[in-house]
Parts: sequence; C-alpha cells; structure tokens
Amino acid sequence: MPTYTAPTRDARFVINEVLDLASYGNLPGFESATPDLVDTILSEAGKFTAEVLAPLNRSGDEQGCTRHLDGSVSTPDGFKEAYAQFVEAGWGTLTAPEEFGGQGLPHVVGFAMEEFISSSNQAFGMYPGLANGAVSAIIAAGSQEQKEKYLPRMIAGEWLGTMNLTEPQCGTDLGLIRTKAEPLDDGSYAITGTKIFISAGEHDLTENIIHLVLAKTPGAPDSSKGISLFIVPKVLVNDDGSLGERNGVVCGSIEEKMGIHGNSTCLLNYDGAKGWLVGEENKGLAAMFVMMNAARLGVGIQGLSQAEVAYQNGVTYALDRRQGRALTGPAEPGEKADPIFVHPDVRRMLMDAKAFTEGMRALALWTALEVDMTHRAADEKDRKTADQLVGLLTPVIKGYGTDKGYEIATNMQQVYGGHGYIREWGMEQFVRDARIAQIYEGTNGVQAMDLCGRKLPSKGGAAIQAFFKLVGEDVGAAKDDEALAPLADKLEKALGEQQAATMWFMQNAMQNPNNLGAGAHHYMHLMGIVCLGLMWLRMAKVAQEKLAGSPEDKAFYEAKLKTARYFFDRYVPDAGALRRKIESGSESMMALEEADFATAA
Amino acid sequence: MPTYTAPTRDARFVINEVLDLASYGNLPGFESATPDLVDTILSEAGKFTAEVLAPLNRSGDEQGCTRHLDGSVSTPDGFKEAYAQFVEAGWGTLTAPEEFGGQGLPHVVGFAMEEFISSSNQAFGMYPGLANGAVSAIIAAGSQEQKEKYLPRMIAGEWLGTMNLTEPQCGTDLGLIRTKAEPLDDGSYAITGTKIFISAGEHDLTENIIHLVLAKTPGAPDSSKGISLFIVPKVLVNDDGSLGERNGVVCGSIEEKMGIHGNSTCLLNYDGAKGWLVGEENKGLAAMFVMMNAARLGVGIQGLSQAEVAYQNGVTYALDRRQGRALTGPAEPGEKADPIFVHPDVRRMLMDAKAFTEGMRALALWTALEVDMTHRAADEKDRKTADQLVGLLTPVIKGYGTDKGYEIATNMQQVYGGHGYIREWGMEQFVRDARIAQIYEGTNGVQAMDLCGRKLPSKGGAAIQAFFKLVGEDVGAAKDDEALAPLADKLEKALGEQQAATMWFMQNAMQNPNNLGAGAHHYMHLMGIVCLGLMWLRMAKVAQEKLAGSPEDKAFYEAKLKTARYFFDRYVPDAGALRRKIESGSESMMALEEADFATAA
Repeated sequence: MPTYTAPTRDARFVINEVLDLASYGNLPGFESATPDLVDTILSEAGKFTAEVLAPLNRSGDEQGCTRHLDGSVSTPDGFKEAYAQFVEAGWGTLTAPEEFGGQGLPHVVGFAMEEFISSSNQAFGMYPGLANGAVSAIIAAGSQEQKEKYLPRMIAGEWLGTMNLTEPQCGTDLGLIRTKAEPLDDGSYAITGTKIFISAGEHDLTENIIHLVLAKTPGAPDSSKGISLFIVPKVLVNDDGSLGERNGVVCGSIEEKMGIHGNSTCLLNYDGAKGWLVGEENKGLAAMFVMMNAARLGVGIQGLSQAEVAYQNGVTYALDRRQGRALTGPAEPGEKADPIFVHPDVRRMLMDAKAFTEGMRALALWTALEVDMTHRAADEKDRKTADQLVGLLTPVIKGYGTDKGYEIATNMQQVYGGHGYIREWGMEQFVRDARIAQIYEGTNGVQAMDLCGRKLPSKGGAAIQAFFKLVGEDVGAAKDDEALAPLADKLEKALGEQQAATMWFMQNAMQNPNNLGAGAHHYMHLMGIVCLGLMWLRMAKVAQEKLAGSPEDKAFYEAKLKTARYFFDRYVPDAGALRRKIESGSESMMALEEADFATAA
Repeated sequence: MPTYTAPTRDARFVINEVLDLASYGNLPGFESATPDLVDTILSEAGKFTAEVLAPLNRSGDEQGCTRHLDGSVSTPDGFKEAYAQFVEAGWGTLTAPEEFGGQGLPHVVGFAMEEFISSSNQAFGMYPGLANGAVSAIIAAGSQEQKEKYLPRMIAGEWLGTMNLTEPQCGTDLGLIRTKAEPLDDGSYAITGTKIFISAGEHDLTENIIHLVLAKTPGAPDSSKGISLFIVPKVLVNDDGSLGERNGVVCGSIEEKMGIHGNSTCLLNYDGAKGWLVGEENKGLAAMFVMMNAARLGVGIQGLSQAEVAYQNGVTYALDRRQGRALTGPAEPGEKADPIFVHPDVRRMLMDAKAFTEGMRALALWTALEVDMTHRAADEKDRKTADQLVGLLTPVIKGYGTDKGYEIATNMQQVYGGHGYIREWGMEQFVRDARIAQIYEGTNGVQAMDLCGRKLPSKGGAAIQAFFKLVGEDVGAAKDDEALAPLADKLEKALGEQQAATMWFMQNAMQNPNNLGAGAHHYMHLMGIVCLGLMWLRMAKVAQEKLAGSPEDKAFYEAKLKTARYFFDRYVPDAGALRRKIESGSESMMALEEADFATAA
C-alpha cells in the first residue's frame, strides 16, 4: 500500500520564504494570512489528507463507483464519510468570498491544499474541485439572486456542482453543441440533450448537485458564439431555500475508464430539465472560460500531485529494495546487496522527480499569488499585469505540468521494477490517474495552441515580453553572485532559446499558421523549462541567503542548492533541442496526404 | 473496438528492398526464403493475426485469466481455439531448426511475424514467445537427449515453456536466488522454492509446460556464479515420450496487473519438483542469457508492436473525428468541422508514430538478419562481427524501442481525447500493455547499463567502433547524393554527438563509474536516434532509387522520403541535448543523501 505525507515543509518554504507572503499583508484578505495561520492550515490539511483521504485511494480505485437502476450513483466505501469530514472542517471554504460564507484567504493557501488533496486521492478531490469551478462561474457571471441562492450552500459544501460541456459529437469544438434550451414562461428554460464525460455528475455525497450546462437557445448562431450557460440543479430549490422536486436530469450511465475510478464520470440525460440562464444569452463561452481557467490550473496541480505521491513511494522502495551493488563498490558490505538507491539510474529517476515536483510546486504557488493579485492588487495596472501573466502561465502549468506529471509517475513505477506493474503496490494507479490530466479541461495540444495562438500574440505580445523581462531581471541579478551565476547563465541560455523560438513564430506564422501549430507543443515544453528554471533560480537564491545565516535545517537548504544544480544540468539542455524542432517548421510534418497514413497489407 | 492490419507492405519493403534478402540466397536456410515465399508467409501471418488474434485482444483484457482452486488456470475465452489454429498452421516452427521439426527459415521472417502477433494480441503472443526463449536455451545448452526429448514437441507447439528467474527477493540481481536443487540418486534434482512473475506459468493451452528454472545446488557459490539451470516439466515425460505423473510445481496465485491481462503471470511453488540440469552446474546464468537475449529482442519488438497498432487506430480516429477548423482555413467547408487530422499537433503525434514504427521495424529486421549471420555466415569472422553487432543493438532495441513504444501508444491515446481514456475504445489497453515491456526482461535501466557498462568497453570498444564505422560509411556515401546529403549531414551530426558522449565516458568513467551510470539511459536513447537515423537514411536511399524508375506505388516511396525528412527534423535534435546531459556527469545526480529525499511535514 502506498503512503503519503503532505510536503508541508516545502510548501511553507515556497509560501513564506520564496514568495514572502507576509510582505503582502497590506492587501485585502492577506492581512489574516499570517505565517502562523498558514502553517496551521497546511499542517491540518496535511493531516486530513494523509489520514482520511490517502487510505481511500487504493480502495476507491478497486471498487469504483456504481450506478443503480434508478440512475443514482454510489461512491466507493468511505467517500461519503470522508466528504462529511471535509465539509465539517470547512476545507471547501478557504479561499471562497466571505460574503457567501467563505474565509477569503489567498489562493496561494488554497492551491497548496489542492495539491495535498489530489496527491492523497485525486478521484475524491475532483468532487469538490468541480464544484469550485461551478462556484467561480456563478461568482463571475451569475445574478445577485443566483449567487445568494446557490453560493452559500455550495461553498459550505452542502451541495456540490459540475461543468457540462462535452457531448458525443463535441469536445474541444464547443460550436458543435446540440443541447437545446427552450425559454419557458416563468423566465427559466427547458434544457434537453445529452452530456458526456461529466465528472462528479451523479453521486451520493450531497443531496443536491448544481450543474452548469452549456446549451443553445432557439435561433442562436450556429457557432461558439451561440452558446449560453445555465444553472440546472439536480433537485429544484424552492424560494425559501428548501429542496423541491427532482429536476429532469438523470445519469444514463457511468464510464469504465483507465483510472480515477473513484470519481463518477457520467453520461447525463437532460429531458426538459429546468434551467436558469447565467449571464447573457450567447455569452456562455466567456463565463465557462472563467471556470475553465480555474479548472486548468487545478488540473496542472493534479499533474504535480501524482508526481509527488509517486515520488514519495519511489523513494521508499529505492531505500528498501536491495539488488546489486553500487558501481563504486559495495555500499553496505554486511548485506547481500545494496539498496537500489545507490544505482545512478534509479537516482536519475528520483532526482528528475524531485527537481520537477519542487519546481512545479513553486510555479503553481507563484501563479496562485498572481491569481490573488488579479483581484486584490491595489493598483489597476498591477491587477492587469497579473491577469496577463496568469493567462500566459495557465496553459504551461496545465500542459507541461501534466505531461511531466505522467512521465514522473511512470518513472516512479519503473523504480519498482516488476512490482510496479502489479496492482496491489499501487504505483500503476498513479500512472493511470495521472494520465487523465493530459486530456481533460482541454487536451495538452489545445493548451499549446492556447499558449501560442492566443496568449503569445495577444496585445502585441505584451504578456510574453513582460515574462521575458521578468526572467531577464532575475538572471541579471543572479549573475553578480558567484554561486548563482552558473545557474543564471544556463537559465539565460534557455531563455535565449525561447526568445529565438518566439521570434521564429513571429516571422513564420503569418505566412503559414501551420508553422505555429507544428511548434506549439514543443514551445509549451520549452516555456515549462524556462518557468521551472526561474523557480529554481529563485529557490537557490533564498537557500543561499538562508545558509549564510547558519539555519537549523541546513540540510534542507543545501538540498535545494544541489537539486537546483541538477535541474540546470538535466532539464535545461532540452531547451535547445526544442527550439531546433520548432524551427524545422511545418513542412515535413504536414507533407503526407491522408492516404499515406493508411497501412498497406 | 480497435482494428489491426498487419503492415506487410512495409515489412516486404524492408526485407526485400532495403535488406535485399534475396542476395543472401547462398547461405544455409536462406536458399528457400525466396521473395515469393516471404511474401506468402507475411501475407498469411497478416491474415491470421488480424482475423484470429486481434479480435481476442479486448475481450482477453476484459476477462483476464482465472486461477481455480486446484491451481489450474484458464486463459480468456477463445485463446485455446486460437492457439490450436496457431499450432495447426505451424506458426511456431518458422525459424526453428529443421532437425527438430522446424522450418529453418531466417529470423528476419520470424521477427516480422512476431511483430504482427504482438500488435494483434500481445498477451497471447507471450505464450509462444516464452516458449521460444526456453527452446533457445535448450538448443544452446541442453544435452542431445534433452533436445530430442523436448524440442520437437515444443517447436511443434504441442508443449509450451517458460523462464523462471525472479523470486520475491530477487529480480535483477540473480545472485540472490534461494530456490534449491538437491541432487537425487537418478541424476535428476529436487527443486524447491518460490518463483514469481512467471509469464505463461500455468494455462490451459497445452497439456504440458516445460519450465526452465534457475536454482542453486548445495554448496554453490553465494553469487551469480552459483546458479544452475534446470528443465522442470509440469508433467513428467516418460522415456517413450508419453506423459507421466504431475510434477511438484503448482501455481499458487496469479497477479492482478496493470495490463497484459490475457497472459497468466504466475507465482509458482516448487516443492521437490523433479528437474534436470541443463548444461554445467553453476553455469546457469550463461545459458539463461542465451534465452534472455532472444527474449530482449522480442520485447523490443513488443514496443514497436503496440506503437504500430495504436498508430493505426490513431490514424482512423484522426480522419473520422471532426473538431475545429484547419489553421489555414476550413478544409471541408461543407461540413460543420474538419477532421482533427488537419491540426498540426495531431499530425505531429501521427508523424512521430510513423517515423518511429517504420524506423524501428527496419532496425529490428536488420538486427534479425544479423542474428542469422551469427549462425549462418560462411566466414567465422563475419559470424563474430555479426554477434558483436547484435550484442550492441540488443539493449538499444529493448530499451529505446520500448520507451518509445510506450510514448507513442500514449500519444495515440491522446489523439482520441477523452474517448482515449474510456476502456471500450481500446486505446488505453495499448498503453497498459506497452508499459510492461519497459520493465520485464531487465528494466530499461538494466539495458542501459548492459549497453554502456558491458557492450561499450568490451574488447577495447570493438563493437561500438565497428558501429561508428558502419554509420560513417553510409553517411559518406549519401553525402555525394544531392537529395540525401541534407539527411546525411544531420545523421553525421548525431553520430558526432554519440561519439563525443562515448569519448566522455572513456575519459570519465574510470575515475568514477557513476559517471557512466548517470549517463547510461541517455546514451541508450542517443544511440537509438542514431540507429533509427541510419535506417531512415537507408530507406530514403532505396526510396529514391525506386522513384527514379517510376514505380507503380510511387506514393509509398515518396512517403518514405517525406517521413525520413520528418525524422531528421524532429527526432535528431535531441541527440545534442542527450550528449550535454551525459556530459554533466554524476555529481549533481548523486549529491543528495538518503535523508534529503524524505518528505518533511
């Protein structure tokens, strides 16, 4: 059975020491987020996830969800009780607005908590995770009445929520939606259609589920400009807040999947279900994107989370399992064999994991702080700058974070050798669970196009230029420091590769947009390397400063410096290769015809 | 339901046109392997695998194997009948020696067949696959009596066989084996111990199973130098060849695994089972390596096979599924959306797959020809040269081939978006099945050390120097050709990176062997790129020659040239990055202490 320990020390390092959260105390909502409170929250969250959620991860995978003949769905044993504890402790209220019963804490705390939840039990975490997305959309686009009716119960965790986008014929391309919304006399709509792949679409955790559903009103434009967003509660809510009749939405089936078996992935049939328009007609996509962007960051954190828990168990096994001898001679001559930890190739996989998880955690938490800035910075200009940066980083965190998360989970399974392939060891579950994160909330190919096709050219490249400036400033400052200069030099080189690739896009995408599409995925990875490089440079700087003061946990800071060196040795060389691939353009990629792909017998 | 078409046209291209098998007609066994016969075999094998084995792949995965209370094991529905057809058609006899009832055909034909079997149903293919390994070991090390007793029935497929190496405490490090072999008065041994992860260890396909078992005789050295190899039949064989008593080996359990559910992975309990020594006492490892090297090539082909079948289905879906529009404007304006085939990022994944599968097929078949040369070349020197080359290529085919096979299978699942994660589409099975190939027959980390620690330094680097020379000669010849020169230039550059990395090992591994271990995995991938580059250069050369003659299937050869260009554009840039990673050495990789890997709460 795999185990999990929430990496609270490392989260505190990033939040308190690298990001210096305390220095933002003058911003609304931050004043109460003192280091003491943050420590307490992280520590309690660590306990809850390790003690309550982690023990249900394997059993939830084995048992899965069960749909009954009446369309109701049971979650795996223990999920209901764990969710009751989650609600009781108020874990869903952390970052929600105070006016609807939330605690209004900074997202940087919420993101750390999200990682712990997802590491301990990704399938469980998706139930409150999807509800968060629904809450964001109602906050952003709902009426005051809708907010008052739904948000307090959703934020308290009494009700959960979902996002309903996908239909059998329609995934990425939301213009193809067929679900209909017919206006009724009372101002509501009758929603009819079939939605698929609805995570947490039906379950027994709460007595109501608030579905947010994309549908088309009569005569709406036949494109993504004709989509509207509706609130469709599973159980209708009376004016006094009590639950009324069951609405016309039923779970028709649940999917048999590769992983995340503890989460019910539903086909939902809407048959004249009563729904209420959120925001304006035909503007549903914009409201949905609010929810999607939050969800994409959450999915990126899922990538990190599976890498982290797989890493922890990889370390345990590497120290326990004995096979062969160190290349430099027996490390433990009294034993018949050394722990496989001594083998460089095992260490390579562990270091790849450590360099990724710690770098990615820093990137996610830094972005969380920027998310807070988009709402809370005093200055309008600062809010806009933050918004631009978050928009740029979101596809990188989702796409690079989940590609690497899957790769790391796979490598940690590899550390186990044959035992990694056996279900009872639990390592293969991490791989199967991690796999979905590369697919949902927009496949990573979609993320790459969001980054390169939308975010890069937006406002004349303002966001990417600001990012380059920011990295350049850190590089410049570090170059004056003897110890940091070698790291800064390597980051500068990687930055140069990214800048060159960006320039190449500018010069070649106009004449043929396929040149952009052909390089987008590689660019996303190239930017992921630069982002993690920036984080490692910042972490190394803090570690070095701390070491100058002879801190108590000297080993922690020394390990940071060593891991930073590893990152620059083993991750950064890919930057040049990615640039060269991008610069090879679309010609050979698009050269073959349809028929050339057919297999000839 | 996924489908499969055996790529016989491509196999014929490699065998007849690139390798020019007909030109080897003067060698024993090759005279009968005329292009006509090869075509017939490939075509029949293609039909058998597509029509009989492929339809059982999904159902075999869903149903899995069942162990009954008496220790007997049932294979999935249909496997028994399919195996009977396999035997009836004589598919297991292709390359086996004629003196024991085989057809004595070149391995190049057998390898092509192995790919088809594994693509259509990897779990099924493992039953005869493991038996092949057992046959190789008996041929290499068994007595004449043993050969006569077992080989004809095994080659005919009447009996199957297994390899028993692993024990709970002992995987890679065979010195840790505890299974005991006590000599009996009649010259046989009593085998007692527990073996785990025994593929095809118990089943209902044949009435006997010939286990090849590693065990220790009394007083044997406490290391890998004290291991002996034994034949332990499931049912004892009387002197007249009839089946006698049941031997003392029982399947204690079958493993629940991530994939290859159609194959029974057994824990076998040996309780004084009667066994017969194969070859000399304490020389079991050498005999086992004969079988292992054959098996490693087979596992490399499994990597190719899962990539191939996943690719075929990826293509089908990409042409069928419509989402979004081409970046260059609607490709099919009459439809509501274009096939996702138009998107460069989808094309990237398809082209990565095509460039890998076709390159890897050529590499596997070229190596198969060299395997034949080790036995059949007229000249002793040529046999040795071939043996050296096969030894060098084996870990690359296994390690690089299966790492890429898994990656490609994952990418083809990605083409399906959300549907790729759903079991019924079958794409996630390819990923789960492909995963094992990176692990068994020596993890890919073990392959990397076999390549770098054993094969590179062997005989003063003779094998790698010969390989460099061979690549250099092809590069040199191609440089004179205007069309091929750009490809040759890129291969030359990649070769230069590999040579530099090799030199770096020579200069740095003596002083610290961890410098070798730290770079071994990257080196294996670097060499994989050079190997596939060599294959693509050769295939491009043949394609160009054919095109000069205005052949009927012009499009086939043009596609080869275009895919070759893609390979050099998108695979080869990694060579430089891998070299730089290798040259960063082991310092940062090995810098952390055990305690630094612990997660601090």
